[in-house]
Amino acid sequence: MYNIGIDLGGTNIVSSVVNDKYEIISTAKVPTNSPRSADEIFDDIAMISQKAVREAGLTMDDIYSVGLGTPGTVNAEGEIEFANNLGFNHVPAAKMLEERLGVKKVFIENDANCAALGEAYAGVGDGAKDFIAVTLGTGVGSGVIVSGKIVNGVNNAGGECGHMVIVVDGEQCSCGRKGCWEAYASATALIRQTKKAMEDYPDSIMHKLAEEEGKVSGRTAFDAMRTGDIAGIKVVEDYIKYVACGVINLVNAFQPEIICIGGGICNEGETLLKPLRRYVEAERYSIHSKIQTKIVKAELGNDAGVIGAAILYMVKE
Amino acid sequence: MYNIGIDLGGTNIVSSVVNDKYEIISTAKVPTNSPRSADEIFDDIAMISQKAVREAGLTMDDIYSVGLGTPGTVNAEGEIEFANNLGFNHVPAAKMLEERLGVKKVFIENDANCAALGEAYAGVGDGAKDFIAVTLGTGVGSGVIVSGKIVNGVNNAGGECGHMVIVVDGEQCSCGRKGCWEAYASATALIRQTKKAMEDYPDSIMHKLAEEEGKVSGRTAFDAMRTGDIAGIKVVEDYIKYVACGVINLVNAFQPEIICIGGGICNEGETLLKPLRRYVEAERYSIHSKIQTKIVKAELGNDAGVIGAAILYMVKE
Repeated sequence: MYNIGIDLGGTNIVSSVVNDKYEIISTAKVPTNSPRSADEIFDDIAMISQKAVREAGLTMDDIYSVGLGTPGTVNAEGEIEFANNLGFNHVPAAKMLEERLGVKKVFIENDANCAALGEAYAGVGDGAKDFIAVTLGTGVGSGVIVSGKIVNGVNNAGGECGHMVIVVDGEQCSCGRKGCWEAYASATALIRQTKKAMEDYPDSIMHKLAEEEGKVSGRTAFDAMRTGDIAGIKVVEDYIKYVACGVINLVNAFQPEIICIGGGICNEGETLLKPLRRYVEAERYSIHSKIQTKIVKAELGNDAGVIGAAILYMVKE
Repeated sequence: MYNIGIDLGGTNIVSSVVNDKYEIISTAKVPTNSPRSADEIFDDIAMISQKAVREAGLTMDDIYSVGLGTPGTVNAEGEIEFANNLGFNHVPAAKMLEERLGVKKVFIENDANCAALGEAYAGVGDGAKDFIAVTLGTGVGSGVIVSGKIVNGVNNAGGECGHMVIVVDGEQCSCGRKGCWEAYASATALIRQTKKAMEDYPDSIMHKLAEEEGKVSGRTAFDAMRTGDIAGIKVVEDYIKYVACGVINLVNAFQPEIICIGGGICNEGETLLKPLRRYVEAERYSIHSKIQTKIVKAELGNDAGVIGAAILYMVKE
């Protein structure tokens, strides 16, 4: 059985044919070139999907279902209700794909949820039924799987754990609240924290590192820490504490089998995960339980989204 | 069909026979008299359960299942792993009830989860499949229902949303963390906040109100507010802001159909709920969704626990 998984991103659109072992067997790509009309974008999506099918040596008759992951909120009818960075407002995505590809089974889902589903079934989750994927990127994305199903809630807007406040009246978040986890644990937040420390520590090696890289990045403080730089150590310690606070909140609320951490910051690997696990072990509510949530690094990278989109039929049919 | 629901509390044990319309048709009670051995306590549980069955004009042959709600953590085998205030450590509750009552279908669950299940199916939830019950009492209890099932997680310790931090490095919580929602939104926290304001405002009417009641209670600040007392208004406004912070966190993570609020503080009714809803409407992530989470008052009171216990078979079989 073959399925098409599509990742509709702000920069690129990727369409892949995925087999029933969750393997990508062909992929085609096109730039999003946003802002464009939804019709133009969906014409391109159909074009690359047909191309991926041809490259896999298949025809559309071999395709069981099509799944698409998109930023923003999606309703139960497969309509993209609102996607800020695509300029989409009530776009009937499922209908538009069905018309263009002639496939009856079409599923639309938020992209973070697709990535979580991909990691849960095909990646580091290895089929875990209670699973959370957290992405530490520009924002803090999350997708939550409970009993094998995506937590969508009553309006398909569930699973936005990056927008849980961890500091009442804290830093302004892009969502309008103050003190969201995202405002402390995203790469954007880390960069803000790094810049603040550079102001406070004019002698820190971070100034030199940032000059060499041409900018302050999510790596600056971690690299400084590795040289023993006091300011770098402080930034990283505080940042990991904030990441841990949200992760422990998720452990206490969901007690999933696995929480997987992805996104750019995750390239730090055990430098991030080891102290993170120490915080979780010290603070989780379930101190007396024999079974505990595992904290691991995401393993599928960008493939998680298309694989998750391709297997949406498994949880939505 | 008849089921027995048992609420094993720190002070009293209640056993009720519940019919298939979720109605309690008989009830028997006994003091917990803790600390006692688990054997003695379970002998009493069996005794009152048999009494409730007799008073309903039934025999044990009419009973389809027995459900028990207990404080603490319960594992998948129906063992109470740890219940601090009962002094229980690895008590095989399901086996002990089965032996004493001769009923094969026995289900054990955390008491907050039973109360949530009761409200979701038989109370204010009216069968909602995505539902959260929050109890603002000595602590902040919560039970979470997703797709009609209790969120237990991998170790049956899930749903402890009172122990999600809302203030990093904030007030010490009894669970060991600092800044938990419970440490700001429980009745205990409200009393602490009231006492603090009384120190800061020696002329506040709260001093007189507390003297009349013989203590500072969860009502003191609310009653003072109603007289126009500045300190009382300030305490209540801050308290509701903290309650709202956690409720919005739950909305963003779960987007349930309903969040119901119970516990002593809930007697304030719309005085609490109206400003709470205003916060939620202003801050929820799902601003563009047509369907939104309803925030309502719990309606079953103490009956939620026994009814939820009696219908555990519906979600656990």
